[in-house]
Amino acid sequence: MNINGQRLLSNVARFAEIGKVGEIGVERIALSEEDKEARDLLKTLMLDLGLEVHIDQLGNMIGIRKGRKDLPAVAFGSHLDTVYAGGRYDGALGVIAGLELIQTLNDQGVETDHPLAIINFTNEEGVRFAPDMMGSHVYSGQAKLDDILVSKAYDNPNETVGSQLKAIGYDGALKPGSIALESFFELHIEQGPVLENEAIDIGVVEMVQGIHWTRYTIEGEANHAGTTPNQYRKDTGYASAEIIKFIGDYSRKEENPVLTTVGSIRYEPNTINIIPREVSFTVDLRSTDKEALNKGQIEIDTFINKAVNESDLAVKSEVMVRFEPVHFPKEMPDLVENTAAGLELRSKRMPSGAGHDAQMMNHCCPSTMIFVPSVNGISHNVEEYSKDQDVINGANVLLNAVLNRAKQVS
Amino acid sequence: MNINGQRLLSNVARFAEIGKVGEIGVERIALSEEDKEARDLLKTLMLDLGLEVHIDQLGNMIGIRKGRKDLPAVAFGSHLDTVYAGGRYDGALGVIAGLELIQTLNDQGVETDHPLAIINFTNEEGVRFAPDMMGSHVYSGQAKLDDILVSKAYDNPNETVGSQLKAIGYDGALKPGSIALESFFELHIEQGPVLENEAIDIGVVEMVQGIHWTRYTIEGEANHAGTTPNQYRKDTGYASAEIIKFIGDYSRKEENPVLTTVGSIRYEPNTINIIPREVSFTVDLRSTDKEALNKGQIEIDTFINKAVNESDLAVKSEVMVRFEPVHFPKEMPDLVENTAAGLELRSKRMPSGAGHDAQMMNHCCPSTMIFVPSVNGISHNVEEYSKDQDVINGANVLLNAVLNRAKQVS
Repeated sequence: MNINGQRLLSNVARFAEIGKVGEIGVERIALSEEDKEARDLLKTLMLDLGLEVHIDQLGNMIGIRKGRKDLPAVAFGSHLDTVYAGGRYDGALGVIAGLELIQTLNDQGVETDHPLAIINFTNEEGVRFAPDMMGSHVYSGQAKLDDILVSKAYDNPNETVGSQLKAIGYDGALKPGSIALESFFELHIEQGPVLENEAIDIGVVEMVQGIHWTRYTIEGEANHAGTTPNQYRKDTGYASAEIIKFIGDYSRKEENPVLTTVGSIRYEPNTINIIPREVSFTVDLRSTDKEALNKGQIEIDTFINKAVNESDLAVKSEVMVRFEPVHFPKEMPDLVENTAAGLELRSKRMPSGAGHDAQMMNHCCPSTMIFVPSVNGISHNVEEYSKDQDVINGANVLLNAVLNRAKQVS
Repeated sequence: MNINGQRLLSNVARFAEIGKVGEIGVERIALSEEDKEARDLLKTLMLDLGLEVHIDQLGNMIGIRKGRKDLPAVAFGSHLDTVYAGGRYDGALGVIAGLELIQTLNDQGVETDHPLAIINFTNEEGVRFAPDMMGSHVYSGQAKLDDILVSKAYDNPNETVGSQLKAIGYDGALKPGSIALESFFELHIEQGPVLENEAIDIGVVEMVQGIHWTRYTIEGEANHAGTTPNQYRKDTGYASAEIIKFIGDYSRKEENPVLTTVGSIRYEPNTINIIPREVSFTVDLRSTDKEALNKGQIEIDTFINKAVNESDLAVKSEVMVRFEPVHFPKEMPDLVENTAAGLELRSKRMPSGAGHDAQMMNHCCPSTMIFVPSVNGISHNVEEYSKDQDVINGANVLLNAVLNRAKQVS
């Protein structure tokens, strides 16, 4: 069975009008007016498809298509929120392909034993409110609703998740997680360059990398750049350069299967002729291998402590995120792989480098992800783009994998 | 002859009340209300001393004590402006010690052949308006008045040097540099740790280091930290760390008599989980040795170009400052050294690591500087401090060196 590609693409374009940036970009921050508008459109389309629409207490939206039997629902979806100046596919594709899946079944009069559930999770990106993957965190029981509702906006402490859910009218009554799920599929763009570079149609996601985020703050002494000989310097800029180079080198050694990124830095006072008194930087460390991730963290911490001690500096570190790698149950990627093969699509088993709702949902039901190629691997950027045929292929794999799991009966 | 130490210190404290920050700090940005208030006090005190007060078209303040003969004036002074959250000595000491010098001569009825001139130069720090050493730049003919008057505030393009001079009432009529000078002495704190660490009373400044300031901007590609394998990265953060480490290492090799500082940096987009698309950083390179300075600049540029090419990145560089080392005529530091010895003070010949008005004034008359120790080498900081006795020693050396040059006649 195949979805209607043109209808899918036209719905992607329709949602992309909400919060449009430039030609193809989208900015739809969670719990904003644009988020509300996209949610309203989703609700209308769900109702048009004859779905039963539920809004839970965290604003997660669930559209149910009844099954023939009283069984847990086979679920699929993703999120409609974006990062600042983001793209039209990240998140939205998984939700919109879910609508197309159900429209296709409706058109063809197909029924399933299991109910089907489209889910739009609240605040996957975590741009204004921590944590990210918020809706699936709570849905899957990995975080408590009450703790999350009081999370404050980074840019405005007067706004909380709870107050903003109310403001946009998505503070529902349903307890998160109360709809039982049989399995969860998330169709998503890869957000990396691997599929495109290797000319693969479908990424079969076996696991999600573990993620460690840490902020280090090195403390030394501000001094005049012209009058302070080297032996009297406590130069945190020089020390941090040595550390950041070590962290980059570490990941580039074959024996260390980890990815490292220093994406943000701040010098104090950040003035051309003053030796930096303080440098703060973040380390993003990822691996599919739990042991390698922990070993990498220890070796980086050890190097930093040694470098700082040798230079008579001090360091503080703040643990921001520690997620272990998540392995999807083998049956789920196997099903995606077989489904792709049945559709004569080239697939590749791969990990997800980014965090996704599916990694949270795997705590409450067998889950997996279906990746489609990202042009130039670009994402979290208004230039994010995936080719039409790739998007259509992904939706077809989703449709057929879901039908297999939900037991098509007519 | 000796100045009155308590009177000097009490005048230092009096000026430090204007723009006071915390216990001992001062913030008196050039051409601000605080600058005006300090200038007004200086003018009053100059008039009280019987000086003839001139304000030039750039706001430089010159107080003349007549000589017995019609000769060029022996000049001394510095600046009353400070950096943000600065100290009470940097600049102000040289001006206030000049007042004390003249008070001492008045009290003792001493006359000189040469007239004497105290100068307060406009905007030495260059905090809001470029260039720094502004007043002495123009006084000494190194920059044109008309070019400088239109210089805009970094933080407000509607304010120019000209408009702000008018606003504080210091847009005088005198053409800068029209008062002929026989020589120029600048008493200043060292702003570095050398004198204190070596227990020296007086730094005899033979020269001012050359300074090169350059901003480099490295351009790569922003990508997702989790989904972009190393071989697909164009990581400007990693590349800049290698470069900053090289620049620091370079200065720490004995064969390279240069000082290097990377004091400011900016990552774009500066986000924990995005590989930096662009990194911009500044390099402050100094040396007393012109050849070493130029060689260092070439070797740093060569390394940067090589590193950037090897990583398939691009680099732009912007030349901000190029000052060659300035050598004061031997007779001037010799006089300071002999004067210190006559007062039984320990002195050391040394270069100035920082830029000062005296290096500009050396273009129009023989100049030099007298340094006194800075506690912990701290300056450009509210904790800047110099011990009372050190300050008094410096003023006594200034007095006696000036008298030697101006020919005491009674």
